[in-house]
Amino acid sequence: MTERPTALLEVAAEVEAFLADFLSTQSDHWAAIDPRLAEPIVELERIVGSGGKRLRAAFCYWSWFGVAGPDADPAPAVRSAAACELLQAFALIHDDIMDDAATRRGIPTVHSAVAVAAQQDGWRGEPRRYGEGVAILVGDLSHVFADQLMTDATPAARHLWDDLRIELNVGQYLDMRASAARQNDIVTAQEVVTFKSALYTIVRPLQLGASLTDSVTPELLDALDRAGRPLGRAFQLRDDLLDVTSDAERLGKPAGSDLIEGKPTELFAAGLTLAGGADREVLAAVGESDRGPDSVAAAVEILHRCGAVEQIENRIDSLVAESVSELERLPYCEAARSALVALAHYVSQREY
Amino acid sequence: MTERPTALLEVAAEVEAFLADFLSTQSDHWAAIDPRLAEPIVELERIVGSGGKRLRAAFCYWSWFGVAGPDADPAPAVRSAAACELLQAFALIHDDIMDDAATRRGIPTVHSAVAVAAQQDGWRGEPRRYGEGVAILVGDLSHVFADQLMTDATPAARHLWDDLRIELNVGQYLDMRASAARQNDIVTAQEVVTFKSALYTIVRPLQLGASLTDSVTPELLDALDRAGRPLGRAFQLRDDLLDVTSDAERLGKPAGSDLIEGKPTELFAAGLTLAGGADREVLAAVGESDRGPDSVAAAVEILHRCGAVEQIENRIDSLVAESVSELERLPYCEAARSALVALAHYVSQREY
Repeated sequence: MTERPTALLEVAAEVEAFLADFLSTQSDHWAAIDPRLAEPIVELERIVGSGGKRLRAAFCYWSWFGVAGPDADPAPAVRSAAACELLQAFALIHDDIMDDAATRRGIPTVHSAVAVAAQQDGWRGEPRRYGEGVAILVGDLSHVFADQLMTDATPAARHLWDDLRIELNVGQYLDMRASAARQNDIVTAQEVVTFKSALYTIVRPLQLGASLTDSVTPELLDALDRAGRPLGRAFQLRDDLLDVTSDAERLGKPAGSDLIEGKPTELFAAGLTLAGGADREVLAAVGESDRGPDSVAAAVEILHRCGAVEQIENRIDSLVAESVSELERLPYCEAARSALVALAHYVSQREY
Repeated sequence: MTERPTALLEVAAEVEAFLADFLSTQSDHWAAIDPRLAEPIVELERIVGSGGKRLRAAFCYWSWFGVAGPDADPAPAVRSAAACELLQAFALIHDDIMDDAATRRGIPTVHSAVAVAAQQDGWRGEPRRYGEGVAILVGDLSHVFADQLMTDATPAARHLWDDLRIELNVGQYLDMRASAARQNDIVTAQEVVTFKSALYTIVRPLQLGASLTDSVTPELLDALDRAGRPLGRAFQLRDDLLDVTSDAERLGKPAGSDLIEGKPTELFAAGLTLAGGADREVLAAVGESDRGPDSVAAAVEILHRCGAVEQIENRIDSLVAESVSELERLPYCEAARSALVALAHYVSQREY
């Protein structure tokens, strides 16, 4: 269950085709006015076209399909699913500045690519500042384009879209602040997961899809909340585990990044609880600026040995079971329910 | 005509009261969940509450008033006017990162205030990166709040809002790129002015206000375009002049900043055209990284002596006359027309 399921691949293909067309229309429009004005859009096309799992798009799409059924015109669902992906591009472009990530999905991030080009061309000013400035604008533009795709959605969907975006920002702030202030406690970690993974990644896309129809009810929104929250937590726990069990090539970023950045994860919090005296000190010290790869490797080993990795694996299993049981009870057509269940297994068992 | 006119002061007071209430409701909401989550909103309150001319709000409001008349409920207009100001806060917060501005309106910018605090508290990582990361998020949040205020506006207003935001971003990109690539030609300068000042600051707010009613017509939108474009250019030309005729205290930022940054302005382009051999070389050299205050003072003196300042003053006068003649022909009530004319004189003659 670790390959991308058909339910995901089909939506990804449709959404990617839509986005390629939408962005090339935009860049053509601006290039006709002044070729320089198309540059931020071309940069956005590079990032959006570099892959991504398209999970938010798939949750949105299949939840819409569940309510609207196979005979409805999928255009509004594809449009909103594409909006989710453009919003995710916005979030990643800005996050990469905050984390100073040089690459993502194996290609240079916007701020690093633009800084290198500015330096090579001998442009005025500090290349780092210019690269980050352009990346801020490319992200902002992606945010506006995402919104533009939602402008003619139903009022209910537009309000959910507002909530989703506020939760994304608030969650990202807490994540960054907790790392900087060294607040690696489990309460903080779970709060970040609620906003960034449970709400932003799963619950809100599910509710957004359902809200694109006129037949959404408060009861359905509640049911999607109950199905989505545990799955969001499982998704994030898998993410945390991959950071210490996978490698840079599959992750598209260095393994152990979370440990080095001092990111508050449930895995790390579990390690601090389960590890004995000396091990706990090693864990607590990782992420200080003077530690190198050796201390990360030692921390990874401790997280396995003390039982933290196993505890998180078990937690994922029970969260997914909880979510699947809710998904199977949704008043959706069978095709939508089985697609959502397949997605649930995939997000919690994926290998990158 | 250099004091803020009543038409501006009244709208500013209403919009500021609305924003104070809106933002404190938001920060109370998030503080109840976790006091840390309110921090970005408190920071936004600090910036939004630090003043600003509220020009975009006033153009939006009075254009709405012109169509809707004195008996209509002003709530939708105040809401959209407030959205314009939150969007402006978003733009300024992000611009200040790009320009590395330490202060604005006499108070520390978000990224500089947060970086100083992170350093003092000994937080992990580079204070500059943390400060800029938080400022990116505070700006993003302001963007979402601005949108949220537009979510229930008319479809016509929402589409205009999308255009306005894209033009803002595209204009800012060109502005920043032209400075970095040393493209100080007059064509580039005018293009930046079209997007950032004519469209974003004047034309779109005027059209947005009119679009909040059901009686907006394509002819009215065209008339507002004709009235707003010359005024937007006059607004920007005044801005460019103030950079070389005012002082840091009144501007709230160092005088001569545009020259130092190599910003492509019509004033600078006029100077390059009008100045003789040696003077032109001095102008062309200003803004290189090794120049100090002396070379800026010399450039300012040349811009006066060669007639560039006078040429731009004359240009402002004829642009305002053109705009006022269009404003006086609008099918608006007399109160709205005279408010808009007063605004036109103010934006082109203001002293800061």
